[in-house]
Amino acid sequence: MTLLMESQTVEDQAIKAKKAANVLKMLDTETKDRALEKLADELEANIPYILDENAKDLETGRKKGYDEAYMDRLKLSESRIKDFSSGLRKLIDLEDPAGIIQEKWELENGLSAEKVSVPLGVIGMIYEARPNVTADAAGLALKSGNAIVLKGGSSALYSNQAIVNILHQGLSKTDIPEDAVQFISSTDRKAAQELFTMKEYIDVLIPRGGGALINAVVENATVPVLETGVGNCHIYVDKHADTEKALSIIVNAKTDRPAVCNAAETVIVHKEWLFANKDILDETLKSNQIKVHADQAAMNVLDGAAAAGEPDWADEYLSLDVAVKTAENMDDAIHHIDRYGTKHSEAIITEDADSAEEFLNRVDAAAVYHNASTRFTDGSALGFGAEIGISTQKLHARGPMGLPALTTTKLKLKGNGQIR
Amino acid sequence: MTLLMESQTVEDQAIKAKKAANVLKMLDTETKDRALEKLADELEANIPYILDENAKDLETGRKKGYDEAYMDRLKLSESRIKDFSSGLRKLIDLEDPAGIIQEKWELENGLSAEKVSVPLGVIGMIYEARPNVTADAAGLALKSGNAIVLKGGSSALYSNQAIVNILHQGLSKTDIPEDAVQFISSTDRKAAQELFTMKEYIDVLIPRGGGALINAVVENATVPVLETGVGNCHIYVDKHADTEKALSIIVNAKTDRPAVCNAAETVIVHKEWLFANKDILDETLKSNQIKVHADQAAMNVLDGAAAAGEPDWADEYLSLDVAVKTAENMDDAIHHIDRYGTKHSEAIITEDADSAEEFLNRVDAAAVYHNASTRFTDGSALGFGAEIGISTQKLHARGPMGLPALTTTKLKLKGNGQIR
Repeated sequence: MTLLMESQTVEDQAIKAKKAANVLKMLDTETKDRALEKLADELEANIPYILDENAKDLETGRKKGYDEAYMDRLKLSESRIKDFSSGLRKLIDLEDPAGIIQEKWELENGLSAEKVSVPLGVIGMIYEARPNVTADAAGLALKSGNAIVLKGGSSALYSNQAIVNILHQGLSKTDIPEDAVQFISSTDRKAAQELFTMKEYIDVLIPRGGGALINAVVENATVPVLETGVGNCHIYVDKHADTEKALSIIVNAKTDRPAVCNAAETVIVHKEWLFANKDILDETLKSNQIKVHADQAAMNVLDGAAAAGEPDWADEYLSLDVAVKTAENMDDAIHHIDRYGTKHSEAIITEDADSAEEFLNRVDAAAVYHNASTRFTDGSALGFGAEIGISTQKLHARGPMGLPALTTTKLKLKGNGQIR
Repeated sequence: MTLLMESQTVEDQAIKAKKAANVLKMLDTETKDRALEKLADELEANIPYILDENAKDLETGRKKGYDEAYMDRLKLSESRIKDFSSGLRKLIDLEDPAGIIQEKWELENGLSAEKVSVPLGVIGMIYEARPNVTADAAGLALKSGNAIVLKGGSSALYSNQAIVNILHQGLSKTDIPEDAVQFISSTDRKAAQELFTMKEYIDVLIPRGGGALINAVVENATVPVLETGVGNCHIYVDKHADTEKALSIIVNAKTDRPAVCNAAETVIVHKEWLFANKDILDETLKSNQIKVHADQAAMNVLDGAAAAGEPDWADEYLSLDVAVKTAENMDDAIHHIDRYGTKHSEAIITEDADSAEEFLNRVDAAAVYHNASTRFTDGSALGFGAEIGISTQKLHARGPMGLPALTTTKLKLKGNGQIR
């Protein structure tokens, strides 16, 4: 189990992955599930090794002066590694997304047609620090019959390589070729860029991480991309909003996990509601340590609010900061969302059913909410069982993506000599 | 009705389309269908005007010395224009792909969730000569609740502009904003390129035309692309192929319409079948004016065949030429398809059910056939009612795309104060 195998190029690895994908796609569900079980066992049996390798990354991280939050994401523990293995075991209980006949029909000439789900082939996963993505993504790919090429962040290099080494050791005892999981150990940025255009071998790229990473992939890749992540989410508090619901949803959407993509970043408040509820809103935000950046009208009533500028409207805070915009009416609110939203999750708080319906229909986003927190845009919260990421694009899959997002379809046509 | 309105930029037009899309997506099916009816009427009432404008394109084409086939695609007639209007009327009978509740469930906390189909928004269509795309694409977009920005080939500029003028005249009498159909009249190549990166206003780009056009879009666009078109399709004649079926399918797939993407370009023949059927194969190809480019083994038995080189295997002929490769076995055939195929349509001819099943499962293509012609990969042949194009990609839609390919989904979540 050596860390660096520089003799093979990224292209070599992609070719191996494609060959493995051609074997993997022919395996039945039971064979894939048995392999997942074996991988989970193997991870659990090798916790000390993985922790030793993780310690190397942590040491480098400390030397480089990474902040506490970053170090926490990087740090593995026995229980975190057991989460990886239980994640793999959970996949066993989920329906195999490949091999499902979605439609079946017969043409007048007797040609029989069926549209069946099949694995995409080879998935390229490009991600930042968290080593949990390594085990999770490999599991999701294998369950759905896909090979995967992993390119993780260099700060977690030893941890990721250790996890992949254990996965390979596990795969060697199964019918899935070890080559189905490829890990690019080069820390050269060019290694990731090579994946961007490798259309011959890579069927889809999934970037997981910050906006800069995602944009780099979207802007430079010719391989199709499943875009995930950025969520500049809004909560619109309508004139007819219930005060208690509005406050509890604002607090939850802002403070439950401020750094995730479905957290709220801007609250748009109808001017009449704001005026009627200014004291309790002010008090609620303060008591929850929420720092307010507001437009002029909201600054006038929210004590201590800073003046909001263009970046406050346009960017994610991913912190306990919130932007507050005053709206004349719902049109005003929707125009603001149209301009600054990232089509992720948008909510309206109102007791008026017509306004709610109009908002849900007009706002263009993966998930739209009436009287609920934007935090529910999440595969596990919505009951999908597993999540590859949250798509913010419109093609292929939108919103939280479960296993079916890792499949495509194939038309199988069976005849006895039909011609046109 | 002026031809050039250079005062507005491509961006102006895209912004107008986006605004129109926001109105259009709120319209019900009946309103959209009434508008399609009006557009069909208007086209029929203005045939002489469209033919006059078409004559200008034909004159330019003659001066430029375009070939007969090209001129034929460019030429409109009363009956061709009536095909446009009957195409629009046919859309009325098809199910509206937007507004369909695909899934509906309730979380334990009482939050109700539904996944509903919604229009993509604004479609950018970039296409070459044929003016029929102008009317067809506009109709498909409007039926599915989308606005469209059209950028047609400069050789059909007057014809396309005339059709759009009539569509605008028709739309002005309906509830659909005229701006929902935008036509870029600039012949500057940069105008099309501007669409490539206009992510803020354009939701998807659909290129229709030759490989060079499609590649230019795929390689340069940051707007998501629905890739259509290139089909380097193979017919594998297995050792156990029925002679009559094999010959009739080869002739049909090659000669019925050689210039379309689902035509066969290479026939892969099992060496034993070739030896047993060499005379009748030779005779059949000759009597159908099919020009053969073959590998050494096939050249030995097919009289007058030219030697095939790399381009014969890799490129579409789109003519009565065919490449013939001899295969040792099915593995050999599938490796050839893996290497040279474009994942469009691939067929096996055999009486052996196991071989057929293996081929259908192993070959990676949008459509795979057993004992039938590849020519059936087509929306109308498969009964889809309307076709935007044939997707050769794996994400979003694969194979012939009907109206549902012009929609995405939205999660609508309705609660009474739920937080996480």
